[in-house]
Amino acid sequence: MASAEYYMKLALGMAEMALGQTSPNPAVGCVIVKNGVIVGLGAHLQTGKEHAEVHALVQAGELAKGADVYITLEPCAHQGRTPPCADLLINQKVGRVYIAALDPNPLVAGNGLAKLQQAGIPVELGICQAESLRLNKYFMHYMKTKKPYVTLKTAVTIDGKTASYTGDSKWITSKQTRLDVHLYRHQHDAILVGINTIMQDNPRLTTRLPRGGKNPIRIVLDTNLRIPLDSHVVTDQKAATWIVCGSNAPEEKQLALTQLGIKVKKMSNDQINLSSLLVWLGKLEITSLLVEGGSTVLGSFLDAGCFQELIFYVAPILLGGRQSYPSFAGIDKHQIADGRSLHFKSVGMIGPDIKIIAEPVKVGGEDSCLQES
Amino acid sequence: MASAEYYMKLALGMAEMALGQTSPNPAVGCVIVKNGVIVGLGAHLQTGKEHAEVHALVQAGELAKGADVYITLEPCAHQGRTPPCADLLINQKVGRVYIAALDPNPLVAGNGLAKLQQAGIPVELGICQAESLRLNKYFMHYMKTKKPYVTLKTAVTIDGKTASYTGDSKWITSKQTRLDVHLYRHQHDAILVGINTIMQDNPRLTTRLPRGGKNPIRIVLDTNLRIPLDSHVVTDQKAATWIVCGSNAPEEKQLALTQLGIKVKKMSNDQINLSSLLVWLGKLEITSLLVEGGSTVLGSFLDAGCFQELIFYVAPILLGGRQSYPSFAGIDKHQIADGRSLHFKSVGMIGPDIKIIAEPVKVGGEDSCLQES
Repeated sequence: MASAEYYMKLALGMAEMALGQTSPNPAVGCVIVKNGVIVGLGAHLQTGKEHAEVHALVQAGELAKGADVYITLEPCAHQGRTPPCADLLINQKVGRVYIAALDPNPLVAGNGLAKLQQAGIPVELGICQAESLRLNKYFMHYMKTKKPYVTLKTAVTIDGKTASYTGDSKWITSKQTRLDVHLYRHQHDAILVGINTIMQDNPRLTTRLPRGGKNPIRIVLDTNLRIPLDSHVVTDQKAATWIVCGSNAPEEKQLALTQLGIKVKKMSNDQINLSSLLVWLGKLEITSLLVEGGSTVLGSFLDAGCFQELIFYVAPILLGGRQSYPSFAGIDKHQIADGRSLHFKSVGMIGPDIKIIAEPVKVGGEDSCLQES
Repeated sequence: MASAEYYMKLALGMAEMALGQTSPNPAVGCVIVKNGVIVGLGAHLQTGKEHAEVHALVQAGELAKGADVYITLEPCAHQGRTPPCADLLINQKVGRVYIAALDPNPLVAGNGLAKLQQAGIPVELGICQAESLRLNKYFMHYMKTKKPYVTLKTAVTIDGKTASYTGDSKWITSKQTRLDVHLYRHQHDAILVGINTIMQDNPRLTTRLPRGGKNPIRIVLDTNLRIPLDSHVVTDQKAATWIVCGSNAPEEKQLALTQLGIKVKKMSNDQINLSSLLVWLGKLEITSLLVEGGSTVLGSFLDAGCFQELIFYVAPILLGGRQSYPSFAGIDKHQIADGRSLHFKSVGMIGPDIKIIAEPVKVGGEDSCLQES
């Protein structure tokens, strides 16, 4: 008979398959095992649809009685869009429940586990906990902070340039890298760029994978509402577009955009405060934000300290030039030591390019954006 | 009995040990095997000292007769600083000789191999040839072009900055990376920086490895001879310092430097032409040049197309800033597509940093610096 870790990893694998399509819900997988035979498998696929446990219990039917149930996240205990899974497990008289991690959602947060235990079902908590938390890092961060998990993405030449002095940034990276970016778009609730990117490149910001994918909500930082009304993100209706502006942005432009079906968020100050923006996005259930900005936007996120992860795609091109654009602008630091310390989580080749994933080194156990807000 | 590749790899391993200390000679290893028993081992250790074959033949003594000899490079056929190794092999009546690669030195270039064959000794050429050529890539390039193999090295933050706007570049990288740089210094004949680096950092440019090492000749590009007479590279006498200036540099400063034992090379134009500089260095038997420049010097090498390899150390620091220095300055390109195409040879972690090795993609089979000269 295989180990508990073995079955929990199968459940995690199923959860991972649906990553990016369950938001604002977490990705969850469930495996039901009786006498060493898998009798039920399930994953939560979309918010409002059945939870992982429901799929697996339906599959198992009568065999669920006395069986071992492996779930990557604590089963819910409340009547939400679906009935509480803890009750279903109790009703089906399952034998034992293995849970990788507790659900930080205050409506669950230990209640699901307690309910099972009160019904006399033995529960084992913590198998593959780290993997489960990592899988749902967007959800976990959102539950903890009520703000989206922010990933900064940039594509640079090996000498750190993101555009030539003329603003040209096309085809820095390879087809393989561009596919990888589109997978990130699929997995994020929203994508953010600055108005300069819209003016320069007029991008669509949609997910274009070989078999389709979910489009993220498109967010444009546009302090003075300079966005052309014929921009792709305004006209193509492929996904929702939210434009964020400062308090002095022209009313008539705001009205014109609203009439085209675009949500315009006017901030309370003349400049856009990123921390306030993230609070607003959190209220709208945006759990993850992919920032694909140019130098200015990425520099602002650096200065505000508002990010949880960075993805650098490095192309085998040496550009040079004093006027070419760096990936991050922002405030000039006096010394190297004044820079933000990171930790490289992974590095490797992707096609002819290099992909680097980094995260900020926490200051005093929390990142600075949390401390500021 | 082990394969021929097995013994050749042992010979290559010994050659590699002496890499950097044999210049302008190549690194060579030799293994003599009789009836499956190694009876002689040798590596060339320093120019003017015994060749690899001599050490191995002395060790083998009478056992060399009829033995198999594995040599990583064609044995010499001419009376140089030492007697011709081909003659020694013939005199010792070895049974068979395996050679990884021919020696491109015009004094050898097939003559060693021919001599052996004329004496009736069977020769097998080409075992581990690629490894042998790679091991002696500096030597091979030098023999082919009569100019040094140029390696550009830079240390940058993840956003491609090499110094803050104030010029501060201290402690970008970790101790592990700095040790790696010193190993490169040990392995190169010469190291090159620009006058800005001398003015900013007053570096020593010596090899500081835990067990010592060979100091490279220090070359400073200083068009107008601005170098302070109390700079470390002028006063410390730890290694030779050569200063390269333009034709308009002040005579009196040149004299003052010369009196301090510094070689001053005045170029024929008011600006320093890198291609001419490399020709001059080649005439002085500099086979390898490590360029540790700042933005200006690296930008000049990029613009001139004069480099064979690039080493990027990337630190887990996000600096930002519009005025901070990029690793490569030089001419501004109109488009990304105007940049120099590279190929990433390797990427990986070194301590907390990332190390990337790249090489220019050859244009028409040769690099542009060769075409220009």
